[in-house]
Amino acid sequence: MANFILRQAKEEDCEEIMRLIKELAEYEKMPEQVKISADVLKRDGFGKEKYFDCLVAEPVTPDGSGEGGQLIGYVLFFYIYSTWEGRACYMEDLYVTPEWRGKGIGTALWVEVTKIALSKDCKRLQWSVLDWNTPSVELYKRRGGINITVEEGWHAFRMTRPVMEDFVEKNGPKN
Amino acid sequence: MANFILRQAKEEDCEEIMRLIKELAEYEKMPEQVKISADVLKRDGFGKEKYFDCLVAEPVTPDGSGEGGQLIGYVLFFYIYSTWEGRACYMEDLYVTPEWRGKGIGTALWVEVTKIALSKDCKRLQWSVLDWNTPSVELYKRRGGINITVEEGWHAFRMTRPVMEDFVEKNGPKN
Repeated sequence: MANFILRQAKEEDCEEIMRLIKELAEYEKMPEQVKISADVLKRDGFGKEKYFDCLVAEPVTPDGSGEGGQLIGYVLFFYIYSTWEGRACYMEDLYVTPEWRGKGIGTALWVEVTKIALSKDCKRLQWSVLDWNTPSVELYKRRGGINITVEEGWHAFRMTRPVMEDFVEKNGPKN
Repeated sequence: MANFILRQAKEEDCEEIMRLIKELAEYEKMPEQVKISADVLKRDGFGKEKYFDCLVAEPVTPDGSGEGGQLIGYVLFFYIYSTWEGRACYMEDLYVTPEWRGKGIGTALWVEVTKIALSKDCKRLQWSVLDWNTPSVELYKRRGGINITVEEGWHAFRMTRPVMEDFVEKNGPKN
């Protein structure tokens, strides 16, 4: 029998999710990049405008409820859009804490998101990975994922907020 | 004086937007990839659940209204989320029809999206480009965009819908 349960994230989970976000950023060798707080997560995931959905994994407690307060994995996702195919789903983070790996928790979270995406008529599930993260890259390929950066040549571009502000300042309507 | 105007897309624009989506896919050498119709755009952009926002450009008509029925450019965008920085905005398509280029329409559309993203407290503006599209890659760099595929090693992965269905079938709970 599974010794973990999956459920929708609740507002009260944000501190624990934040702790796991930081663990993942450390694994990705970019811990200094985490600028948000649990309050920002609460506003953006559970406020008036929802920017993401999140499922969490927790250990089964003796009473079977799993409400022990400790989270051991999460998947954070949202919907994107393709003008070629329509609705798609994007997995921003899929993470299981090291001591709970190898029990199928990551796969279970991934399957749940995929089922939700299918039910929403999504034509694609997308995500990103750092190219040096070979174990993940290989796993994704075994699961049928296509590396569209390698296969089709898609490169990702980003403007940071200071660049956005400068761009508007320099190119906006003069008046 | 500008000979074009920008405005929010309306449901009635979807046939024209669809025409421009196909023009862009031809430029990207993937015209056969366009599977959606104007009806799908209407459902997903103007229905109960909104999956994207869109701004359009049209020529100024003699009466100054611009309501001539012909669109000459569009930008389609939506919100994404970073667990490091929070809200972000993604430009899926930014396109101006060839005979109207060189008049600042593309920049004007881009500036408008950037202003909207800043007003929504977005920390990033993101988009993707095909690596062989050198003129666009160079333009994006001049405007302050960072190629995070090259600079940080981010690669994009995708599961198609048949792969998603197969993944759930093979890995979902057995019961």
